Amino acid sequence: MTTIDPGDTDVSAAQAAIEERLLDNVVSSFDAAPDPRLRFIMRSLTRHLHGFIREVRLTEAEWNQGIAFLTAAGHITDDKREEFVLLSDVLGASMQTIAVNNQAYGDATEATVFGPFFAEGAPLVQLGGDVSAGAAGQPCWVEGTITDTDGNPVPHARIEVWQADEKGFYDAQYDDSRVAGRGHLFADDNGDYRFWGLTPTPYPIPNDGPVGKMLDAVGRSPMRAAHLHFMVTAPRKRTLVTHIFVRGDELLGSDTVFGVKQSLIRDFAEQPSGTPTPDGRDVGDRTWSRVRFDIVLAPAGASGQATPQQ
Amino acid sequence: MTTIDPGDTDVSAAQAAIEERLLDNVVSSFDAAPDPRLRFIMRSLTRHLHGFIREVRLTEAEWNQGIAFLTAAGHITDDKREEFVLLSDVLGASMQTIAVNNQAYGDATEATVFGPFFAEGAPLVQLGGDVSAGAAGQPCWVEGTITDTDGNPVPHARIEVWQADEKGFYDAQYDDSRVAGRGHLFADDNGDYRFWGLTPTPYPIPNDGPVGKMLDAVGRSPMRAAHLHFMVTAPRKRTLVTHIFVRGDELLGSDTVFGVKQSLIRDFAEQPSGTPTPDGRDVGDRTWSRVRFDIVLAPAGASGQATPQQ
Repeated sequence: MTTIDPGDTDVSAAQAAIEERLLDNVVSSFDAAPDPRLRFIMRSLTRHLHGFIREVRLTEAEWNQGIAFLTAAGHITDDKREEFVLLSDVLGASMQTIAVNNQAYGDATEATVFGPFFAEGAPLVQLGGDVSAGAAGQPCWVEGTITDTDGNPVPHARIEVWQADEKGFYDAQYDDSRVAGRGHLFADDNGDYRFWGLTPTPYPIPNDGPVGKMLDAVGRSPMRAAHLHFMVTAPRKRTLVTHIFVRGDELLGSDTVFGVKQSLIRDFAEQPSGTPTPDGRDVGDRTWSRVRFDIVLAPAGASGQATPQQ
Repeated sequence: MTTIDPGDTDVSAAQAAIEERLLDNVVSSFDAAPDPRLRFIMRSLTRHLHGFIREVRLTEAEWNQGIAFLTAAGHITDDKREEFVLLSDVLGASMQTIAVNNQAYGDATEATVFGPFFAEGAPLVQLGGDVSAGAAGQPCWVEGTITDTDGNPVPHARIEVWQADEKGFYDAQYDDSRVAGRGHLFADDNGDYRFWGLTPTPYPIPNDGPVGKMLDAVGRSPMRAAHLHFMVTAPRKRTLVTHIFVRGDELLGSDTVFGVKQSLIRDFAEQPSGTPTPDGRDVGDRTWSRVRFDIVLAPAGASGQATPQQ
């Protein structure tokens, strides 16, 4: 357990009893909740919330700051900007939820954060097609095989991929309504898949709102390690939401949403200009990169089913 | 301690270690925060947030519901509606913050929740004047004396009062911009004060938003016990934010924001039609009520200074 700074713990037994009685009253107010799961959640939430307030001896000015923070987060949130997801991400709450719901199972590929930039309805891309759709960046050939934890291929798994361009922007952050840097494809009969994307580059999470101000106040960087998002679904398999990261990226140790896992770091091998491409595509005189990401899916129901519903 | 329903606690040591390591990483991310108080708060907040997620084994669908709840709360919040204050209120977090910052001191009058309906700049009302300003309801004569904890009068203390009308609405909830049911006045040379207000009536907190839906889902009433708000400030005294409640109100035991304290319940004595008023005011053939509320102020700095900054 990390040690913490001592707070003002000068609380008399009489005062502690007052605080404890109030907490008990609030916890009891959920006694009549018809849904036992909701009752359990609200009681636990209440106890942890009060535990926080009592531990730090939250001042009324600080309470006001908290309300103002949440209000500002609500007001900057719209169809394209989700400040509460960012907040959950930078507090590690998203990653902890992932950890709770995607427990290790055999050699199944590890999960990581979903993030705020997935979009339903991304275009279908043929195997070997280009998901960048004109988004700027170095072309990257991505290929791999999807298997189960017994090593058997998983044919026709659905693969959603999404990523930022070389400037660090997802299409949702563009001024227009272009769709770029995202798509879905299906593995072939042998569980193999391949597509052209972009070599991932590091970028800051949107930091012009209250979450960015908070990171600044605590001396934390808003930068995410470079990554490429995957969501893989197949019948009777646990849905996998993950990224791959770039070996050598100096941000691997300080990803601001705590998403990096050693098992998800891959070699993105840069190819000199003129190197023939795997599928004969002409990329002109540009350099390009290639990466292999073999994916192992756990069976459905293995210690929690990931079901993102952004 | 209230017992809680058991959750899914089928967590292996290896899994617990993964979750603990993630938490440690997040807590450590605040190590460089320049402000030690902010560092302490963020570490505590993180540990309690992760403790909640791990204790209830929060599912990803539930995480999504939480994000959607906060988003909806943000979107219904505007200049006149503060859903996050309501949320804090119904979870008892506001009342716990009050408890932490307004510890018992001698026979000082107890504090209770500030609520979302205070407004700066309420009109000056002369002693004996009418703060209702036309808001509908039964007239109520309110009087009392302000003293310190040694029993000495506190002359010229500033008293802010605000209240809902008989339909349960504050002026901020009216369609127009009328100011009614609020004002400030000053105690006289002897610490005495008096004014006309309205007999308080119970009302629901605004329950057409996400907080109302949550209360409904857990089988809780949105009703507040009838009350009249006070905020009293005087030099070298701890600011007092409180209400008085109405003896006999059947909601005293189930106030949805946990604001009721026994010491704040008062007799609102109803006067038959035609009973002469204390100041000779003609209230026509209506009934009216009267209440006495003597106020005792703690010295400034007594276990936390209340400084509401709505």
